Amino acid sequence: MLDRSESSLASLLARRIPGYTLEAPFYTSPEIFAADMEAIFEQHWIYVGVEPDVPEPGDVVTVDIGRNSILIVRDDDMGVRAYHNVCRHRGARLVLEEKTTVGNLVCRYHSWTYNLEGDLIHAEHMGENFDRSCHGLKSVHIRSLEGLLFICLAEEPPEDFDGMAAVMAPYIAPHNIRETKIAYQHDLIEPGNWKLTMENNRECYHCGANHPELTVPLFAYGFGFAPEELDDLEREQAERYACLVTAEHTDWERMGIPSRCQEHLDDMVTGYRAERLPLDGAGESHTLDTRAASKKRLGSLPSDKMGALHFWTQPNSWHHFMGDHVVTFSVIPLDANHSLLRTKWLVHKDAVEGVDYDLENLIGVWMATNQQDSDLVGYCQKGATSPAYQPGPYSPHTEMLVDKFCNWYIKRMLAWHGPTRVTAKA
Amino acid sequence: MLDRSESSLASLLARRIPGYTLEAPFYTSPEIFAADMEAIFEQHWIYVGVEPDVPEPGDVVTVDIGRNSILIVRDDDMGVRAYHNVCRHRGARLVLEEKTTVGNLVCRYHSWTYNLEGDLIHAEHMGENFDRSCHGLKSVHIRSLEGLLFICLAEEPPEDFDGMAAVMAPYIAPHNIRETKIAYQHDLIEPGNWKLTMENNRECYHCGANHPELTVPLFAYGFGFAPEELDDLEREQAERYACLVTAEHTDWERMGIPSRCQEHLDDMVTGYRAERLPLDGAGESHTLDTRAASKKRLGSLPSDKMGALHFWTQPNSWHHFMGDHVVTFSVIPLDANHSLLRTKWLVHKDAVEGVDYDLENLIGVWMATNQQDSDLVGYCQKGATSPAYQPGPYSPHTEMLVDKFCNWYIKRMLAWHGPTRVTAKA
Amino acid sequence: MLDRSESSLASLLARRIPGYTLEAPFYTSPEIFAADMEAIFEQHWIYVGVEPDVPEPGDVVTVDIGRNSILIVRDDDMGVRAYHNVCRHRGARLVLEEKTTVGNLVCRYHSWTYNLEGDLIHAEHMGENFDRSCHGLKSVHIRSLEGLLFICLAEEPPEDFDGMAAVMAPYIAPHNIRETKIAYQHDLIEPGNWKLTMENNRECYHCGANHPELTVPLFAYGFGFAPEELDDLEREQAERYACLVTAEHTDWERMGIPSRCQEHLDDMVTGYRAERLPLDGAGESHTLDTRAASKKRLGSLPSDKMGALHFWTQPNSWHHFMGDHVVTFSVIPLDANHSLLRTKWLVHKDAVEGVDYDLENLIGVWMATNQQDSDLVGYCQKGATSPAYQPGPYSPHTEMLVDKFCNWYIKRMLAWHGPTRVTAKA
Repeated sequence: MLDRSESSLASLLARRIPGYTLEAPFYTSPEIFAADMEAIFEQHWIYVGVEPDVPEPGDVVTVDIGRNSILIVRDDDMGVRAYHNVCRHRGARLVLEEKTTVGNLVCRYHSWTYNLEGDLIHAEHMGENFDRSCHGLKSVHIRSLEGLLFICLAEEPPEDFDGMAAVMAPYIAPHNIRETKIAYQHDLIEPGNWKLTMENNRECYHCGANHPELTVPLFAYGFGFAPEELDDLEREQAERYACLVTAEHTDWERMGIPSRCQEHLDDMVTGYRAERLPLDGAGESHTLDTRAASKKRLGSLPSDKMGALHFWTQPNSWHHFMGDHVVTFSVIPLDANHSLLRTKWLVHKDAVEGVDYDLENLIGVWMATNQQDSDLVGYCQKGATSPAYQPGPYSPHTEMLVDKFCNWYIKRMLAWHGPTRVTAKA
Repeated sequence: MLDRSESSLASLLARRIPGYTLEAPFYTSPEIFAADMEAIFEQHWIYVGVEPDVPEPGDVVTVDIGRNSILIVRDDDMGVRAYHNVCRHRGARLVLEEKTTVGNLVCRYHSWTYNLEGDLIHAEHMGENFDRSCHGLKSVHIRSLEGLLFICLAEEPPEDFDGMAAVMAPYIAPHNIRETKIAYQHDLIEPGNWKLTMENNRECYHCGANHPELTVPLFAYGFGFAPEELDDLEREQAERYACLVTAEHTDWERMGIPSRCQEHLDDMVTGYRAERLPLDGAGESHTLDTRAASKKRLGSLPSDKMGALHFWTQPNSWHHFMGDHVVTFSVIPLDANHSLLRTKWLVHKDAVEGVDYDLENLIGVWMATNQQDSDLVGYCQKGATSPAYQPGPYSPHTEMLVDKFCNWYIKRMLAWHGPTRVTAKA
Repeated sequence: MLDRSESSLASLLARRIPGYTLEAPFYTSPEIFAADMEAIFEQHWIYVGVEPDVPEPGDVVTVDIGRNSILIVRDDDMGVRAYHNVCRHRGARLVLEEKTTVGNLVCRYHSWTYNLEGDLIHAEHMGENFDRSCHGLKSVHIRSLEGLLFICLAEEPPEDFDGMAAVMAPYIAPHNIRETKIAYQHDLIEPGNWKLTMENNRECYHCGANHPELTVPLFAYGFGFAPEELDDLEREQAERYACLVTAEHTDWERMGIPSRCQEHLDDMVTGYRAERLPLDGAGESHTLDTRAASKKRLGSLPSDKMGALHFWTQPNSWHHFMGDHVVTFSVIPLDANHSLLRTKWLVHKDAVEGVDYDLENLIGVWMATNQQDSDLVGYCQKGATSPAYQPGPYSPHTEMLVDKFCNWYIKRMLAWHGPTRVTAKA
C-alpha cells in the first residue's frame, strides 16, 4: 500500500552497514530468498557431499538445491558426474530415491533410458525424424576437492575454485576422504534462514552459554575475546593458548601436515578459510573424552593427535578433520524460514562399528551441538520477523568472521543483482 | 528482480510449440493456475457428477470448483438445479456436507431460508423495506447429458454443448445412467497440476510399463505404435486388431449401439472424443478376469459383450461405459500442484452388493490404475519445478491426443487472456 | 492478468455501502490483512490482558500481535511495562515462554542482559567503543484501565484513550480486577478473518438458533427485534423488558454503580460501548443456573445481582463483568483466514477452586458459546472466498452495531491508507 522502493533489494544491498547484522528482509523476505537462490546458490560452487556417497559404478545420490534436483553418479570409469534429474521427454523426475544403484537411468513414465554418461540410448514410438543425440541428460559442473564434492549450476562456474583447491588439497589429502565411509548422516531442518545458520557457525561467542558438549574438546580462547575484559589469570591463559597454537603449527608442518591459517572469506568469489587448531584434553578428537572415537587412523596422518582442521567454504559448508574421523556439514536453503543442515561423519572405510568405533560416541558432540544451534537460529528468525528488529553490532573481537560472511554475501549479491551484472565466473 | 515479461502469460501462450509439452510455468505458476481457473473452469462446461448423486427431491450434493462452492439439488419436480452455496445475508456457506437431504435450504447463522427453487422464503428482523425477491440464491447453469451432469459458471455458457450432446446422447443412452446407482466413489488428491492429470489420461504409451491391472482388459495396439518399430509378428497382430475394431463397430451399430469414433478434441469449445473399443479376453468389462463385474446388465444393451465406450470431455473428464458398469472420472484443480481426481463406479440400481457384484472386483482395476497414474503425475510435477526442465517432444504415434489436449487448452486460454477477449459462448 | 485497480484497497474503502457487509477482499486478501495490521493493530490501543497476568515483580507475559512479539513485565516498583521482545545484538527473541518469572531479561544467544527497566546492563566482548545506553530494549506504550491492559505500537498513540478511560473507570472499578486472579484461560483459533470474529460478537441475532447455553442467562429482547413482526404477547414481553432495564439502571446507579449505556463505537478513534444489562433467572451470572459461579463477590459491589456489564472496545475486545466473575476476550488476527480468540475468566483472588467455585460451571457457558461462534465465523469465511459472494444487508433492528464496527473500521483504514494519511493520534 506504501511505496516499497526503500525496501527494494538494490537499496537494501547498497545501504548495508559493515559490522552490523543484515536488515530483516534478508532473513524473512521470500523475494530475497529467491534472489539468494539465483545469485548465490545457482552461481557459486556448492558443497553437496563426498565421494564415499557414490563409491561404486552405478551408485547414484540425488541432491535438491532450491527448485533443482541434481543426480550425482559414479560412472563405469570411476568418474563422478552430475546431471539434472529431469527426463527430456515429459519432464518426469528420473531418480526418486536419495541413494540408489542403477545400470542405466530409466524413466518410469515411458521407459526412456539414459546411460551413465547421460546419453539417451532408448526411446520407443518417437518416429523416424527423432534425434536421440539431442535428448541426452543436461549435465552439471562437478569438482572433487580430495573427495569433497562441489557442484555449480552456472553455465560458467567461478574459476577461482582451482586456486582454492590448490591451496587446500595439501591440508585435506592427508585425511584421505576417498578411503573413508559414511558412518552416519543426519538431516536437520533448522527453523531459520540459511544465512542465520551460516552466521551461527562463523563464531563461538555463543558456545560457552549454549554448547556444554562442544566446549569440552574446544579451547575457549581460540574464538576471540576482548583483551580489556581479561583479568590477570585469564590474560596468562590466553597467552599460553597463543603459544600452544604456534608450537603445534610448527610441529605439524614439520611432519608435512599443513596447518597454518588460510583466510579468504570475503576477498574471493569462492571464499574459504582453513586452520588446524589444537584440541583440549587428550587432543585427539571432537568427543566427550577428547580421545579418538575410531581406532583406525585416517589416511597418511603421522599421529593420533592432529588437532582439528577447520575448513569453511562460502556460501554453505564447514568441515572438521581429525585424526580418526571427519565431520562435514552442508547447508541447503529450503525457504526464507527453513534450511537443511546435512551432517556426515566419516571414518576409515575398514573401521567396523561396535569394534573400531562406537556410533553414539562418534556422533554425540555434534548431534547435541547441531540441535542447540538450530534452536538459536530459530530464536533469531523469530526476532527478525519483528518490525522492532534493527541490525545490531557484531563484536569486533568474537564476530569478525560473521561480518566477513555478510561482506561476502553482499558483494556476491551486488555482482549479480546490482546495476551491472557480473557473472560469478569473472 | 529481473524483467519477467518473457514469462508473461501472453508470451508463454503465443510461443507454445505444437507437438511439445507446455513450458514449466503452465504446471507450476500460481498466477497461471488462477488464469486457468478463470478462463477454463469458470467459462466452460465442467463435468461434476451424475444424476444418481441426487436421486430424490431434496437430495443435495456440493461441489467445489476453485473458490466456488456449488450446490446441486433435486427439486420437487424432479428437476436438477445448481446454485452458489452462499447465503445472501452475511455470506455464510449454506450446505456444509458433501451430500445431504433437506426440505428447504436453511442458513445456520440467522436462519434465512430458501426453497429448492432458490427463493428466499424466510428472513427475520429485516425491516419493512427489505425485498426478499432480490435475495434469492444465485443460480448456476447445469445440463444433464443422459445423466452426466455438467455445470458452467459463466453467465453465457458455450452453446456448442448442444451439438456435442446431440451426437453423444445415442452413444450414452443405452447404458441408462438414470437407472444406475453409485456403488463406490473415491477421491484421490494427485500431487500435480490438473493438466498433467489430463495429459496422463490422454495416452496409453505409459500403460505397458505402469499399469499391470489395466492392461489385462485393454488391447495394447489400441493406443498407437510406431509402425517402423514392429517386427513381422507384431505387424500381423496390429493388423488383426484393426480388423477386429472395424468388425465390432459394424456389429454393434447393426444392433443400434453407436460405436464409431467421434473426435472434436481441439476444434470445438466443448471439445470431446468418443469411441467404443473391444476388450481383450472375455471382452465384457474392466476387470481382472475381463468378465462383467455386475450381473445386472445396464439399460437397453443387447449383449454383455459391448466392449467399452470411451468418452472424454475437455477440460476435465473421461468415462468408460461397459455392459455391466460405468466408471466416470472428473478432475478438479486444487492449486497449481494438486488436483482432485473423483472416480465413481455406477452399477444397475437394482444390483445388490455381495449378490450381484463384488465391490473389490468392481473397483480393483481402476483403484490400482488411479494410484499408479497419480504417482506418475507427481514425478512430472517435480520435474517441471526444475529450472532444467524444457518442453519435450510428444510421440507422433502414441501422444497425438495429449497434443490435442494442449492445443485446446492454449486456444481457450488465448480466447480469454489474449489480446481480444472472446467469451467461451461464441 | 487483468487490471486489478478496481479491487485496490483505496477503491474498496471508498465504495463501501453503509448497512451492508464488507466486500470479500476485506475478509480474504493477504494484502488487506497486512494493511489491517498496519493501520488498525499497529496504530490503535489493543486490549491484551489483565494486571493479574503479571501479579509480582519479574512476572512476564508475552503477546504476539502480527509480526510483533511484545513482553509485558511487572517491574520492581509494581509498575507494568511493555517492550519489544527482541535482543538488540543479533535480534534473537528474548523470552520464549508465554508466561514466566525472571530476575533480569537475559538473551540465551550471547547472554546480553537487560534489567526490568529495559536497560542493557551486561554485554561481553563488545569493545571499548560500545555504548550500552544506546542498546536498551525498545519500549511499547501500555495503559491499565482499572486492571485491563491495553498496548499501542504506534509512536504516538491515540489520545482519546484518556477520555474513554475517564468515562469507563467508574463502571469497571467496582469489580476491582486488580484483586482478581485468572481462574482459566482458553485460546481458540477461529477459522476466519478477525473482522468476522468481531462482527459475530456485535450482534445476537444469531443467538437463538446457535447458543442454547448463552441464551439461558440472556434476555432475547435485549438484542433487538423488528417491532412489526411481534404478535401481541411478544410486544407485551418486549415492553416489560424495556421497563426492567430502566428500573435496574436506576436501582444500580442509586447504589453508586454506573450502568447506563455509553456508546461511541464509530465516533471515536478509541471506539467503545458499555451497558450494564439485567440477567434472566436468578440474575447473578453467565451460568447455566444464572446463579453466581463463585462465592466470593468481586470488589466493592453492593449485591450479587448486578446483572452483567458489557464493555466493548474497537478493534478487538469485549468483556462481561458480573458480581462474581469477569469474562474478558481479546481477538488477535493471525492471517487473513485465522484469528486467535483469547478468553480469560477472573474470580476473586481469594476464591478457591473446588471450594468457592466449580471450574466447569464457571467456564461452561462461554466455552460452548465460543466454539459455536467459531464455527459460524468459519462458515462466513468459506462463503467470502466464493466469487459469488456479494455484500448482504444488515438487519436495521438487530445488526446496527455490526454496521458501526464496519463504519469504524472503514474510517480508520481511510485515515491511514487514504489519500492523506492521518495518524491515529490526531
